[in-house]
Amino acid sequence: MTTALARLLGVRLPLIQAPMAGVQGSDLALAVSAAGALGSLPCAMLGADALRGELQRIAAVPGAVVNLNFFCHRPPAPDAQRDAAWRDRLAPFYRDAGLDPAMPWPPATRAPFDSQTADLIEVFRPRVVSFHFGLPDPALLARLRGWGARILSSATTVEEGLWLQEQGVDGVIAQGLEAGGHRGMFLTEDTTTQLGTFALVPQLVRRLQVPVIAAGGIADAQGVAAAMALGASGVQVGTAYLLCPEAGTSALHRAALQSPQSASTALTNVFTGRPARSIVNRAVRGLGPISPAAPAFPQAAAGIGPLRARAEAAGSADFSPLWAGQNVSGCKAVPAAEITQALARGLPPSAPDAA
Amino acid sequence: MTTALARLLGVRLPLIQAPMAGVQGSDLALAVSAAGALGSLPCAMLGADALRGELQRIAAVPGAVVNLNFFCHRPPAPDAQRDAAWRDRLAPFYRDAGLDPAMPWPPATRAPFDSQTADLIEVFRPRVVSFHFGLPDPALLARLRGWGARILSSATTVEEGLWLQEQGVDGVIAQGLEAGGHRGMFLTEDTTTQLGTFALVPQLVRRLQVPVIAAGGIADAQGVAAAMALGASGVQVGTAYLLCPEAGTSALHRAALQSPQSASTALTNVFTGRPARSIVNRAVRGLGPISPAAPAFPQAAAGIGPLRARAEAAGSADFSPLWAGQNVSGCKAVPAAEITQALARGLPPSAPDAA
Repeated sequence: MTTALARLLGVRLPLIQAPMAGVQGSDLALAVSAAGALGSLPCAMLGADALRGELQRIAAVPGAVVNLNFFCHRPPAPDAQRDAAWRDRLAPFYRDAGLDPAMPWPPATRAPFDSQTADLIEVFRPRVVSFHFGLPDPALLARLRGWGARILSSATTVEEGLWLQEQGVDGVIAQGLEAGGHRGMFLTEDTTTQLGTFALVPQLVRRLQVPVIAAGGIADAQGVAAAMALGASGVQVGTAYLLCPEAGTSALHRAALQSPQSASTALTNVFTGRPARSIVNRAVRGLGPISPAAPAFPQAAAGIGPLRARAEAAGSADFSPLWAGQNVSGCKAVPAAEITQALARGLPPSAPDAA
Repeated sequence: MTTALARLLGVRLPLIQAPMAGVQGSDLALAVSAAGALGSLPCAMLGADALRGELQRIAAVPGAVVNLNFFCHRPPAPDAQRDAAWRDRLAPFYRDAGLDPAMPWPPATRAPFDSQTADLIEVFRPRVVSFHFGLPDPALLARLRGWGARILSSATTVEEGLWLQEQGVDGVIAQGLEAGGHRGMFLTEDTTTQLGTFALVPQLVRRLQVPVIAAGGIADAQGVAAAMALGASGVQVGTAYLLCPEAGTSALHRAALQSPQSASTALTNVFTGRPARSIVNRAVRGLGPISPAAPAFPQAAAGIGPLRARAEAAGSADFSPLWAGQNVSGCKAVPAAEITQALARGLPPSAPDAA
């Protein structure tokens, strides 16, 4: 016997490991799933072959349930003027790094969910698919529903939660301001609208009929218990998994998470063009945290790319996105199963599998 | 039998009504105290005579325990250049309101705690004194301790919490980003350092030995239960009391709290010069939310004053500070005792007086 949300998602525990594009793949997702929670595979930065490979790895594990997460932004039209402005803004940093400010940029690699991707995943019939930045077109959603997939997406305001419910999602992830990585905001670009978890969760619970999954600042069993006390049906936790051996978190990122620097995070658009929470580093300080010059998502990443590559080659995280939430106190370099079991101890006794 | 924090504060329940300068006085504080929680008197905007009058009213109620709250900023040196820049910034709004942009400003009325105030309150020997924006000089603190006053202050970061503990406070109010009114921040001016309640409370609980009181986004019993689950020793709630008949909240402010507009709040410095959370109105949109032209606290209020007076006289809240937290769902036009009793139902059963 499990909670209604856990049954809906096909897992034992109403806990979701947050998809974290760029820092984890199927290893972490499978480890979390094996521990009874819902692991997630972030797909937005995977090409078709890489995605297929990950799905085959997951399919090879009997009974594994893994959430596939996609972005669903509209890719911006090419904008030479904005690119030029960003190039100007970055030029001093390029010169400082010994790079030619006029050098070509690598392509930005975050692609939205589309029909080709639906074709690719259809043969694997994933049980849960979650989206960030809203939802894809209704026709695409209908295809997912055709094989019985449960659909989740993130809301950062009450308005977004109501909109998602109207589109028929099976659950809403209440992404509080504390959360690391990209804000899922999609009905507004105004970061002053973004609510802390303590304010967002109860307001969504009160207004929605679908289950609300709390995310942002939840790092341990006490955080899980608090989220459930606010009326959440489950929780989504990302940051606490970043030091697990199954995560692909870089050595530089791991070091930053374990340093006093991790106490200082900010919402910044300098890494991708969309507000996302990162540990404050040279890029965030020198260019942002919010830069009006940053091109639309994901194009800002193209300009940062060469700086990041040069810095990382020299052992520096000065230009790396150091995604992290506001509460890194749950980060431990232990297997993901241990983190999952520790979080599960915060579930209320009425969820019998929490024991 | 009560909790350790309640005993420390001399009340029955580990609940504090947040001091809200400009919108409440002894009526609300006494109503909350009568219900077993700790009412608060915001003193920062009261002149000596008004303060003495409020203290006499409180002293006349046998057994009433009320927290006196003071600001402890350093008043800025006069800065004609910054005032002129603010005047320039405000000029279009003055002209639009039919006001002379060169008209004299009323004085800004927020005064810090000082030795004259200590003289004034000493005869009343308040049991609890809380501060915002840090702490006053050690000599002043020593005077308060001389008559046994318990000292509280707000922390918005882990660093501020550690600093306050080092100064010997009896408890730290963890003011999460969701909270309405002024941020208590005092070791930083960088609003990107400000943590949501879900991230701030557990990190302070982990690092401090003194009791941590959770504030920000707590609107009802579920919020109280969640804060206690995060390890808080008690909670401080402000916004939920704003519609109580005992509060002095203006009709315009009450209307804004009950309108859809209340879903949109922002940290803004345009009303006083310090970041504070207000419902977004014309002043916040047109001048901020954060304006680099705003003079240092509290001088920005002087320039806004005539605009506010003119607008309010015409029935408009366009230039009024509409202090509110990110969760107004607990606001009800019912006696403060009802709000207090409803909040108390969220206290854990191990606090016997919660029943």
